[in-house]
Amino acid sequence: MAGDETREPMDLGRRGLLGALALLGAAAAPSAEVRAEPVAPGAARLSFRGSPLNVVDLTHELTPEFNFSPTRTRISMQAIEGSGAAVGMNLNLLYLVEHTGTHIDAPRHFANDGASLGQIPIGDLVVPLVVLDVREKAAKDRNAQVTPDDIRDWERRHGRLPDGCCVAMRAGWDPLAERRRGATLPADAARRSPGFGPEAAQMLISERSVKGIAVEAMSIDTGTNGPAYPVHQAWLRSGRWGIEGLTNLAGVPETGAILIVGAAPVHDATGMPIRALALF
Amino acid sequence: MAGDETREPMDLGRRGLLGALALLGAAAAPSAEVRAEPVAPGAARLSFRGSPLNVVDLTHELTPEFNFSPTRTRISMQAIEGSGAAVGMNLNLLYLVEHTGTHIDAPRHFANDGASLGQIPIGDLVVPLVVLDVREKAAKDRNAQVTPDDIRDWERRHGRLPDGCCVAMRAGWDPLAERRRGATLPADAARRSPGFGPEAAQMLISERSVKGIAVEAMSIDTGTNGPAYPVHQAWLRSGRWGIEGLTNLAGVPETGAILIVGAAPVHDATGMPIRALALF
Repeated sequence: MAGDETREPMDLGRRGLLGALALLGAAAAPSAEVRAEPVAPGAARLSFRGSPLNVVDLTHELTPEFNFSPTRTRISMQAIEGSGAAVGMNLNLLYLVEHTGTHIDAPRHFANDGASLGQIPIGDLVVPLVVLDVREKAAKDRNAQVTPDDIRDWERRHGRLPDGCCVAMRAGWDPLAERRRGATLPADAARRSPGFGPEAAQMLISERSVKGIAVEAMSIDTGTNGPAYPVHQAWLRSGRWGIEGLTNLAGVPETGAILIVGAAPVHDATGMPIRALALF
Repeated sequence: MAGDETREPMDLGRRGLLGALALLGAAAAPSAEVRAEPVAPGAARLSFRGSPLNVVDLTHELTPEFNFSPTRTRISMQAIEGSGAAVGMNLNLLYLVEHTGTHIDAPRHFANDGASLGQIPIGDLVVPLVVLDVREKAAKDRNAQVTPDDIRDWERRHGRLPDGCCVAMRAGWDPLAERRRGATLPADAARRSPGFGPEAAQMLISERSVKGIAVEAMSIDTGTNGPAYPVHQAWLRSGRWGIEGLTNLAGVPETGAILIVGAAPVHDATGMPIRALALF
């Protein structure tokens, strides 16, 4: 548990999710239905019902590096001094824009009468996870978009999308690295980022049974669709959710995993930083 | 998606977690490894690897009713007006004390050099869940505590605690109902709430392999241990985490479930509201 004595808010660098070492106890208790084995950082492995169950953490550590915008993505914290300090208690007040870091967009984000975060049924937040690997085209185009053909390609290999799933775009995009890189690019290139195209979103709404879509970038819309947000508008207003800022999709199979959307059910919220996990 | 047009922050009553209807798609796609069936509110059921997988949401909706203290437990939100409003975007700035609602205490909460929330390995947040049913004594004593005997009783029935588990105290305590009730009681009675006793905490630290403890009340210490917090001190300083404010333990078996601690990994945080789920 290497800690840091410095208590100034937000002054430390990004640790990176993969800095975590996932070790659980070595020996299983005789009665354990669930036991653990050492695995790679950022992941864990349990034994569940006698079979291995892999856990992959799809979440970026939420650091001030994600303060992309003073009004839309920002987190800061302030230590609270109080009576608890006498017995060594530390706690903080967080100032947090809902859509910061790896986070969920609830329907309310683009629909005044849509479900807030606290209103999304739990069955919509534990769902089959489908990974669309579009890294090849994303390597050629910062603004690559998921198209209906990408979905059909996946289905040719794996069968029809499972009912009630989340479809995640794997573009190989790291929003922090790309933000730094974007600072060296012309404005026109810097605003490009991969996301779902409107045609694919419409296909998933009207022709499939899908609860959510997820991307590694900080918008489910492509960067060039930023000002109008056609996918946000269509998707969230259809009552579905989105996730932005996923990571570690390299560790997840294209089909067969369950996505856990670990979102604190904040009343009236339009979104919230989450813990996103894949189990398979 | 019944919503509410009122956009004033924090003016709505508590909806209650069980208001959520957990329905996923009815028919399984031919290729689906994971499919869903209708189940009771607050829970969901998937088919995973050909067997049913139950999900129970152990989380209270985080409403302003959890604003128990202006400095220690508080949430409020403020709508952000910006360019996004032109296309119908809603988003909020949250002011949030880390230890509000159903939440995790990271070791850092009581240990300056302990792990912050972002430093807890993912393998420590997906763990076997053990439920100690102490409702009988909790019905007689608002300040009931988990003792070493309660742990030994559980082990007589189920075998030794599984390695790396979370031990949850089921007292049948609803912090919101009890807070209202407490307002009608003498101060001496009102400050009583069920939690882990120091002896049980020490036993779990030194004689078992346990990652975390969890309670339904808003403190892992009993109410009368409030000012000194001996369990917070011993437990969190040993590098382990706690969860406060769990609900729905009635729907979870005493052994065999996995606990998902859906905590957004906020850098340097001492705690955070979470989504806690049981899978079994």
